[in-house]
Amino acid sequence: MVSRTDIAAAAGRIAPYIRHTPILPVEGSELGVRCPVTLKLELLQHSGSFKPRGAFNRLLSEQPPAAGVIAASGGNHGAAVAYAARALSVPAEIFVPVLTPQTKVARIAGYGARVVQTGETYAEALAASRRRQGETGALEVHAYDQEGVLAGQGTVAREWEQDAAGLTHVLVATGGGGLIGGMAAWYAGSAEVISVEPQGCPALHDALRSGRPVDAPVGGAAADSLGARCVGGLMFPIARRFVSAAVLVPDEAIVAAQRLLWDRFRLIAEPGGATALAALLSGAFVPPDGAQVGVLVCGGNTDPAKVAS
Amino acid sequence: MVSRTDIAAAAGRIAPYIRHTPILPVEGSELGVRCPVTLKLELLQHSGSFKPRGAFNRLLSEQPPAAGVIAASGGNHGAAVAYAARALSVPAEIFVPVLTPQTKVARIAGYGARVVQTGETYAEALAASRRRQGETGALEVHAYDQEGVLAGQGTVAREWEQDAAGLTHVLVATGGGGLIGGMAAWYAGSAEVISVEPQGCPALHDALRSGRPVDAPVGGAAADSLGARCVGGLMFPIARRFVSAAVLVPDEAIVAAQRLLWDRFRLIAEPGGATALAALLSGAFVPPDGAQVGVLVCGGNTDPAKVAS
Repeated sequence: MVSRTDIAAAAGRIAPYIRHTPILPVEGSELGVRCPVTLKLELLQHSGSFKPRGAFNRLLSEQPPAAGVIAASGGNHGAAVAYAARALSVPAEIFVPVLTPQTKVARIAGYGARVVQTGETYAEALAASRRRQGETGALEVHAYDQEGVLAGQGTVAREWEQDAAGLTHVLVATGGGGLIGGMAAWYAGSAEVISVEPQGCPALHDALRSGRPVDAPVGGAAADSLGARCVGGLMFPIARRFVSAAVLVPDEAIVAAQRLLWDRFRLIAEPGGATALAALLSGAFVPPDGAQVGVLVCGGNTDPAKVAS
Repeated sequence: MVSRTDIAAAAGRIAPYIRHTPILPVEGSELGVRCPVTLKLELLQHSGSFKPRGAFNRLLSEQPPAAGVIAASGGNHGAAVAYAARALSVPAEIFVPVLTPQTKVARIAGYGARVVQTGETYAEALAASRRRQGETGALEVHAYDQEGVLAGQGTVAREWEQDAAGLTHVLVATGGGGLIGGMAAWYAGSAEVISVEPQGCPALHDALRSGRPVDAPVGGAAADSLGARCVGGLMFPIARRFVSAAVLVPDEAIVAAQRLLWDRFRLIAEPGGATALAALLSGAFVPPDGAQVGVLVCGGNTDPAKVAS
């Protein structure tokens, strides 16, 4: 299981390459709750999401071969791997499904990676990337189910704890679970880590209820970033132990959270990036008395016209 | 002249009402320069710009009459006065010229103020607001030329100094000069404060060259936020003493700065909000060896589709 020691080591390794993203303390009344809330603005990270943390940690831990690196992604992970590969002068090949928004495809290509758009879902793009990896021998950077990736994503929690000690509850959007797995491994019970998923993508919710990772539906507004069919095997034991609850939110709450972030904070979050906040707005998570809540805004790779129109 | 004591008092007065906005340290190479740069994300302030600082300080220093408050504005100041008036349960009437973007008119009305759109320029809207003030007796909140407003805007510098000690140069966009006047009064020579104006709105540049506030052209991409015809009489002696340079940037550099803030940081800045950064991108300001540069991103009230399309 990924440990705090692994995460601290990852933080040191990736520090020269990633942004220490800012926090923004907010009156709870601005978000319809009665406790103080701290946003962490991880959407300001390089490539527009938290994903470079895991990508850099993996690339800096393993020596990529001459064939470079290969990854499958709904978009954000691919952008992060492409960004990290460019920074480290390594070639990259990224497989994305056809549902990946053009914003993200353009971003990946803009970092100089070769983009292959194939398959209806992330799972199909992953299968295609693995066939290709068998031919090239490139280093695979998995979107969530590798220890180096989990430890890298866990550095979000370490940074947040430094900047905002005393949070009692931390709300995190979950897709394949690399982010929440790493973060829960860091907090390890010292704060309640709450998973938030769209109703259309309930992979962790369903897994915790079933007692094991199971296939779940993939759909709705945030599917391009949170649409893993099944959570990772490495994150699952961490989640069982250290994720306090896995709540679901409707797409309407995600859209409302995007709108609120623009209206009140002039922030453009993608649907997956606004999903954690949607749990407060929808009442899917109600902070208990005395809570100090952290909400991670984890990505901003969307067309702003869709948010602010 | 507004003093550090006035600014410290303002900071205490307005603290319950404004956001302590975050900073974001950035590699200079991301901005085409060779020194470290710290962005201050004042576009995350309530109402989408720095303006509530001055508005709250003025409203909390003077007791508004039953008629409430009145202001003329290119848009951001009006939004801030409307926001502050609503927070303090005071009626507000805001005069804006016809060039004010719909985004800003909607924001002012959204805060519950009465909006009057009249005149080709800010100066004409101001004249109309003063005629109206003569009838109603409302408290005028000037967009830049009042001591309470200057002291309030100066709290940006106080906050920044707390969070990023050791900046050698601070780049600030200038319109009527309330922001840079307050900030220069705070730094008072301990950092070089650099004014950045669009070539189309050179009010401080022209005033410093003439030795007194003079009328200047008003035009270009950032005119709705930086288009004062003449800098304020209160800020001018501060600027002569504590503003090191007043540089001009072309509109193309402002648009490039907006684009860069979106592409690299997922931030939507309005033209005036990106103007300070444009001085780095255009070479209008070249940091000397050993510089540690601060760039204020001071507003985000624009249609994001114009920035990211």
